[in-house]
Amino acid sequence: MVAQAKALDPASQWTIDEHAKGRAIVVEDGDVFEKGCVSITLIEDGELSAARASAISARSNRQIAAGDRYSACALSFVLHARSPLVPTLRGDVRCFTVGSEEWWGGGLDLTPSYVEVEDCVHFHSSLARLCASHSPDPGTYAEMKRTCDDYFYLPARGEHRGVGGIFFDDLASDWAPAFARALIDAALDEDGPYVPIVRKRRPLEYTDAQKQWQYLRRGRYVEFNLLYDRGVKFGLTPESVERVLVSSPPMVAFKYKAIPADGTLEAATLEVLRRPKQWVES
Amino acid sequence: MVAQAKALDPASQWTIDEHAKGRAIVVEDGDVFEKGCVSITLIEDGELSAARASAISARSNRQIAAGDRYSACALSFVLHARSPLVPTLRGDVRCFTVGSEEWWGGGLDLTPSYVEVEDCVHFHSSLARLCASHSPDPGTYAEMKRTCDDYFYLPARGEHRGVGGIFFDDLASDWAPAFARALIDAALDEDGPYVPIVRKRRPLEYTDAQKQWQYLRRGRYVEFNLLYDRGVKFGLTPESVERVLVSSPPMVAFKYKAIPADGTLEAATLEVLRRPKQWVES
Repeated sequence: MVAQAKALDPASQWTIDEHAKGRAIVVEDGDVFEKGCVSITLIEDGELSAARASAISARSNRQIAAGDRYSACALSFVLHARSPLVPTLRGDVRCFTVGSEEWWGGGLDLTPSYVEVEDCVHFHSSLARLCASHSPDPGTYAEMKRTCDDYFYLPARGEHRGVGGIFFDDLASDWAPAFARALIDAALDEDGPYVPIVRKRRPLEYTDAQKQWQYLRRGRYVEFNLLYDRGVKFGLTPESVERVLVSSPPMVAFKYKAIPADGTLEAATLEVLRRPKQWVES
Repeated sequence: MVAQAKALDPASQWTIDEHAKGRAIVVEDGDVFEKGCVSITLIEDGELSAARASAISARSNRQIAAGDRYSACALSFVLHARSPLVPTLRGDVRCFTVGSEEWWGGGLDLTPSYVEVEDCVHFHSSLARLCASHSPDPGTYAEMKRTCDDYFYLPARGEHRGVGGIFFDDLASDWAPAFARALIDAALDEDGPYVPIVRKRRPLEYTDAQKQWQYLRRGRYVEFNLLYDRGVKFGLTPESVERVLVSSPPMVAFKYKAIPADGTLEAATLEVLRRPKQWVES
């Protein structure tokens, strides 16, 4: 994953930052990525807080108690491209273990400033194939796609953060570990869901106005992360704040009532973000 | 207040935006202020939500029930200066009425990118005098100053958002209405707590590096507003989102572990934000 990320932006300086719970590989002000991070976190013999235990109990069918010991590991990444024509990619895979039980969560989702139908179809088709090749249930992609749309949603804006992808939680099926592994392997693969989009869009020229629109869309990204994201809510401590909030985009603009004019590409993008589409037959 | 704001940035275009609940007067990309807003909101015969009723009951000694009728009016403003040497000002005054009871809240606080001791002393002295001239209790300023420090705090960062000011809530004393009025009148007065600081700092030259530091500090402003601010949490609906989030700064940067070097003005500012000072004898 790290080697693939570097191969995607070879001219930039990726720095490794070791910390008590793992490692972050960060690029800032890079050539392809204005900010990006691949983060590995490992928690051994942790103690579940009351808030976290009740959140997990509520989501899963297990009764998890505050004070239970757990271990967890997570690989997460976010790539904010410099070009407004290249979408932001976010993904993660996490494994959570209490006693002899383990369950998996993760996802991969795309946040473009400009929605391009063929990119969305490519991204979602690739994920649908990944689901189909691991899960015996033919409805897995559709379910994980819906979960993703539901999760990355800003209710006050009536907007989804991006064009989605897949998102799953508390997956304990026997195919879960191999599926999680395959998702990580595919995320930045040359023929995977994302890299072909970068290869196609990155060489294109863009205007200052398009860059400004990207800054505004990044504002929504920040709003989602700080107002609604579960990982941010539970993860924010003095020790963790930098590695949790490394997902914030590099430069962001907030304007009052910045509503794009009808008929523009910006308005068309908002239209899609308000009403998620089915990008592949399922 | 609006006339005073315009007088402070006369070369810029202030636009009036009427909405269902009031009016917002906004400046964007202005001469003195990169973004600013004075907002008036009026709610007549509202119905208290359960969350809001329990929050008010918990703070005050009154038992307020969900479904109770209330009316409220608020004047709030935020001014994000273009120059990193001119602090951001935020203030509000609000009156909340249930039945025959009314109580007042509000505050005025300063968020500099660079802490200047003489500015802080001026700002706080001015507010201390305002408190002393209205409240019979000589401890009012100290209490409101502490409330402000406690409120504008980012626990995961171990930082206060700015150098504070005053903040009060649920004030039902007979001097409350006149005090609230005086606070609004003083906020942008030529001889008040803020305007002399703008007059002094605004003509000064600043560097690109100082502007970058301002962008980073605005990142903390956004983090506070979206993660912790009570008004944002309770106020965010599709109808209100633009007028609630108009307080977001115009351009913002987020960097990973952007820790200023020891001995710099930036590090000295952080030091003050971590340990609030007593700026006036009380």
